[in-house]
Amino acid sequence: MRMKFMRHGLAALSIVGSGVVFADEGMWTFNHFPAAQVRQKYGFEPDAAWLDHLRLASMRLAGGCSGSVVSRHGLVMTNHHCARGCIEMISGLQRKDYDRDGFLAATRATELRCPGMELNQLIEIVDVTGPVQDATRDIAADRFAEVQKRITTTIEQQCATSDELRCEVVSLFRGGRYELYRYRRLQDIRLVFAPEAAIADFGGDPDNFMFPRYDLDVAFVRIYGPDGRPLPTEHFLAWSDGTLREGDLTFVSGHPGGTSRSKTLAQIDDERDVRLPRTMTAVAELRGYLSQYQQRGAEQHRHSTQALAGIENWLKAMKGQHAALTDPVFHAQLARDERVLRERVAADPVLEQTYGPVWQRIATLVRHEQALRTEYTALERGPSSRLFELARGLVRHADEIGKPNGERLKEYSDARLPQFRQTLLAARPIYDELEIATLGWSLAKLRENLGPDHPTVRRILGRRSPADVARTAVVGSRLENLQLDDAGTAVAGERLALYTGGKAAVDASDDPMILLARAYDGDARAIRRRVETEVEGPMQQQQEQLARVRAVVLGNEPYPDATFTLRLSYGSVRGYTEEERTVGPFTTLGGAFERHTGAEPYALPVSWLDAKPRLRLDLPMNFVTTNDIIGGNSGSPVVNQRAEIVGLIFDGNRQSLGGEFGFDAAQNRAVAVHSAALLEALDKVYGARSLVEELGQPPTR
Amino acid sequence: MRMKFMRHGLAALSIVGSGVVFADEGMWTFNHFPAAQVRQKYGFEPDAAWLDHLRLASMRLAGGCSGSVVSRHGLVMTNHHCARGCIEMISGLQRKDYDRDGFLAATRATELRCPGMELNQLIEIVDVTGPVQDATRDIAADRFAEVQKRITTTIEQQCATSDELRCEVVSLFRGGRYELYRYRRLQDIRLVFAPEAAIADFGGDPDNFMFPRYDLDVAFVRIYGPDGRPLPTEHFLAWSDGTLREGDLTFVSGHPGGTSRSKTLAQIDDERDVRLPRTMTAVAELRGYLSQYQQRGAEQHRHSTQALAGIENWLKAMKGQHAALTDPVFHAQLARDERVLRERVAADPVLEQTYGPVWQRIATLVRHEQALRTEYTALERGPSSRLFELARGLVRHADEIGKPNGERLKEYSDARLPQFRQTLLAARPIYDELEIATLGWSLAKLRENLGPDHPTVRRILGRRSPADVARTAVVGSRLENLQLDDAGTAVAGERLALYTGGKAAVDASDDPMILLARAYDGDARAIRRRVETEVEGPMQQQQEQLARVRAVVLGNEPYPDATFTLRLSYGSVRGYTEEERTVGPFTTLGGAFERHTGAEPYALPVSWLDAKPRLRLDLPMNFVTTNDIIGGNSGSPVVNQRAEIVGLIFDGNRQSLGGEFGFDAAQNRAVAVHSAALLEALDKVYGARSLVEELGQPPTR
Repeated sequence: MRMKFMRHGLAALSIVGSGVVFADEGMWTFNHFPAAQVRQKYGFEPDAAWLDHLRLASMRLAGGCSGSVVSRHGLVMTNHHCARGCIEMISGLQRKDYDRDGFLAATRATELRCPGMELNQLIEIVDVTGPVQDATRDIAADRFAEVQKRITTTIEQQCATSDELRCEVVSLFRGGRYELYRYRRLQDIRLVFAPEAAIADFGGDPDNFMFPRYDLDVAFVRIYGPDGRPLPTEHFLAWSDGTLREGDLTFVSGHPGGTSRSKTLAQIDDERDVRLPRTMTAVAELRGYLSQYQQRGAEQHRHSTQALAGIENWLKAMKGQHAALTDPVFHAQLARDERVLRERVAADPVLEQTYGPVWQRIATLVRHEQALRTEYTALERGPSSRLFELARGLVRHADEIGKPNGERLKEYSDARLPQFRQTLLAARPIYDELEIATLGWSLAKLRENLGPDHPTVRRILGRRSPADVARTAVVGSRLENLQLDDAGTAVAGERLALYTGGKAAVDASDDPMILLARAYDGDARAIRRRVETEVEGPMQQQQEQLARVRAVVLGNEPYPDATFTLRLSYGSVRGYTEEERTVGPFTTLGGAFERHTGAEPYALPVSWLDAKPRLRLDLPMNFVTTNDIIGGNSGSPVVNQRAEIVGLIFDGNRQSLGGEFGFDAAQNRAVAVHSAALLEALDKVYGARSLVEELGQPPTR
Repeated sequence: MRMKFMRHGLAALSIVGSGVVFADEGMWTFNHFPAAQVRQKYGFEPDAAWLDHLRLASMRLAGGCSGSVVSRHGLVMTNHHCARGCIEMISGLQRKDYDRDGFLAATRATELRCPGMELNQLIEIVDVTGPVQDATRDIAADRFAEVQKRITTTIEQQCATSDELRCEVVSLFRGGRYELYRYRRLQDIRLVFAPEAAIADFGGDPDNFMFPRYDLDVAFVRIYGPDGRPLPTEHFLAWSDGTLREGDLTFVSGHPGGTSRSKTLAQIDDERDVRLPRTMTAVAELRGYLSQYQQRGAEQHRHSTQALAGIENWLKAMKGQHAALTDPVFHAQLARDERVLRERVAADPVLEQTYGPVWQRIATLVRHEQALRTEYTALERGPSSRLFELARGLVRHADEIGKPNGERLKEYSDARLPQFRQTLLAARPIYDELEIATLGWSLAKLRENLGPDHPTVRRILGRRSPADVARTAVVGSRLENLQLDDAGTAVAGERLALYTGGKAAVDASDDPMILLARAYDGDARAIRRRVETEVEGPMQQQQEQLARVRAVVLGNEPYPDATFTLRLSYGSVRGYTEEERTVGPFTTLGGAFERHTGAEPYALPVSWLDAKPRLRLDLPMNFVTTNDIIGGNSGSPVVNQRAEIVGLIFDGNRQSLGGEFGFDAAQNRAVAVHSAALLEALDKVYGARSLVEELGQPPTR
């Protein structure tokens, strides 16, 4: 595989005289969308109203996904894999297996609440570069993080005037621009429809990040208002008539989680040589552990499936990134880009004096961070255990809540407390057996990574084995206790008591998981503080410098690295060539039946086998486009120039994984479910007639 | 961690005027030992008789370890972890758990045979460089491997005049020299003593490759002759009086498995960027899988422990190698070494014309091999399953045995057939449950790595799941059936029948594991043939060129890369400094009790806790030396200049793992059990009085 990548920094240089951009590259912000560029290439120029409409119909899922409003009654479309946590929770609460069997609410009254699920709608963007940069001007490097946190916390607090708003100061261009994003929080979300996991994730891990594909990775949820009724939604995306041909213009609106396209070579090589190999190795081990755990029995299989799928997805993404960075052609391109920039700086004495040392300073910070990383990861990231996360949340909440807002750990600032409370008091089911297994594994890794003589390890394990410590903490913990009323609000239980009881209650608790979290916390806070003051703050300072010099030398960069904020990508339906094989842009419903073997993960559900005679097997099922997306875009709508739904993003091909570091126009493809397949399945496989009608389409025959 | 490495190529240049070598680097062959160099540095010069004596008292364990004869009655000392396969097998046959409980034969009559264990004693080395290189002179690259195999097979066959001899043509300096190694095969090996795994492997995986250590990683076995009595052994190493001080000269004689110190940068970077990360990720996954499998129950824990320990050791070794290669200082040193050599070649037009293109040709071959690697690994390495290995052995044996000797796959050449037969017909226990688990995992990886559409994958899995295919093949297989007589010779059973029945019997077999092996074999042979003709042969040709030009430019290299053949290292007892902390060279018996927590892997066995009052706790337990060793040296004796046992190698510290690519004189240390601790434990913990007496020492009090 030989990949040709362009980094966006120098991509700007490759705009030829005619103004045509070669690639459909870019995760653009809505307030700086290159509408004219789209017109030049595709003959259509979105106007402000078009952009506002699409923005307001776009939804961020707090868990790391995207979605879109598709009816005037608050109906939201996202991926099955984005709603899987909800599906699993509801299954646990109802003692059903909706993940395996699928779910369809016969009426609105039977739409079931997703505990802890939250959607965010972006209602305003305000530039706050001035106040943020003014506050940290000429500040010492080791105070930068603290001072910046104080100013951004203040801005966010002034913005979040009610619990129904979420405000975040976003650093774009790694400090080149700061913007305040104001969201409406939508917290009563109910499950409307989910197909069986077997068709949503047909092909499972082997086919993940691959194409051709045959997945119906969709779920519908509905936003409910404070009155307990479906929320009226003025801005929703209409369903298209299903017309989509190779070459057609497509837009994707969603929330790419993060990219590293403007990192320096020192940072890139750290990824290639240290961070990715170490993380891949650790995650692969957990994958093996969980895949064997699945064989304990049907119930254990069910309750660990989502965790395992997440692990496998992460691992495969890292493998793709690593493959890109170790591709000699790609790496040479990154090195060349940086050399060109540095040579231009060096050629100008004024620039050289101000910006020349930036790269070396960043390299030094990378090495310093490497020295702190093992301890930071082991202590501050903490073990894989939901109960431990709850315990640490309670312990930290108790300690932080008494401090002034600007001095707290960021996640306990006033603006973020509602989200903390909601996560803490959500009815996500906890499986003791799985908790014991993953906590025991994590504690064994703690000892392996820090060594048996590390003081934290000695404090936590003493003379006991990791498995024994895990068992004691899980079995003895009462943090699972949480009673909810019919509206899903916590009304009683140990967890609520410790939350409302604050520091006195938590300090007095002898819950073994609380004690375990306490045993971590002093050292975890210490290493976190070191990383924040010695690395993150100074690094942000250097990256602001880097952003400035890039702007000076290369002109304004076209789009910032992804930040899990709303972005718009344009592109078109297009196949590609892979190892001399041509891959067409569409698959068909019939292809799924050809790929069906009957054995997981290639076993179609019975509903599909039964419906086969009724289905139009030549209808398109999945397709690929050149849109520039990345993890976090899952659940994004694909729309045509009339802003109508033509598809639903659920994946990228494996060549898109290098997109973390650069965009490969020849092979990087977004993978989507076709709108026609969605309608056909809703109608003929699931008999979801009212849903089909709500989507504004007559039932197909 | 900052490591200063020297590669041996340029280390030769660093010999200063006085003739003093800075580092105790080198895995020397016995026929080119730098005795004068040792005298210059340490004032002692081993003579030919000394070297012959040590060589003939050294043993190679066919499984990948070393050992030494320590009495005139065929008593051999090696590591517990080298005898663990035997201990596990005997436990299975006797329905005991000697791995957990330890083993001591009360009398010689109760010493128990280790099925399949073989020791080799090196009795002769003959230079065959002339005939081997003559045969391949001016041969086309794609025929090189085939022609070289034919000549080496012929030489080996002429040498191995009986089943009691093993002959191997060894390529030293990667083709710079070829030597014929002639071994005496010793095949009736019986277990005499093994301590509990809890003390042999005290600290388990967390302490593996670490120092300070507190392990009694020892086992004693005995060689029996054809008459069924202990073999008289003229050459044995006497036990020292236990005197050993920091700075004392030490020799280690053993079989380092392999090093890569003369590889080119293209090969090194392939290790760093592709091979190590991929292998680490795969092995880490299997580690997690097996560590969760261990929790199925006590029996499953027991029968999978050895496999897991092997996996963990491998993984940790790779992590250490990867850490060395991604250390910027180390990598820069390797790059500089290669650049110096290439510049010297480029400066001489005659050299440049002959040797200039070598590096680029090697780089091209590396890339070609990368393209074949996934398929080669998946098909030719095959799944992790003992039953599958047996089946493939039977299938290939049947197909190969009818061909002329020089045209067979190398492992079925006449010289190697006795070893094949012995491995195939050994009574190693097979655990169906573990087989199903690991074969199922391997088949899932096969599909993951080659993709579900690969023809071999389709042929093997069809419409079934990997787990299902694995279960059918294991449960239905009759290859476990093998009956042995009292001498351990196979006398009946399906496996023997298929072996003796040859091609007709194997072709007629409907054993599902045989069928599975058949389903792999055509494609596996095809990719193997491609790798041999397109990569390995041409690479050997280039490496011969490289060896020549290195000899011309740098002078004769001092010692060849390790090749799992007998080597002698000199060094001395010496501590080191690690992250500004001084690590002394000795630990004590008392230290083990301080480290005891009672929880695995830091739980001393009851025998030790009971014996504590009787033990001299200030006696040295483990120690480190500067000897240059690597995996395969496990079980090597450490001797003083009187060739007396002062210790037993069982590990290297983590800084030694970079020894694969270069020797770090400052920190690379070999880790050994002290001879005094061995005697003290045999006497006072295990009451092994007759063993103590046999070792030539009066019982200690």
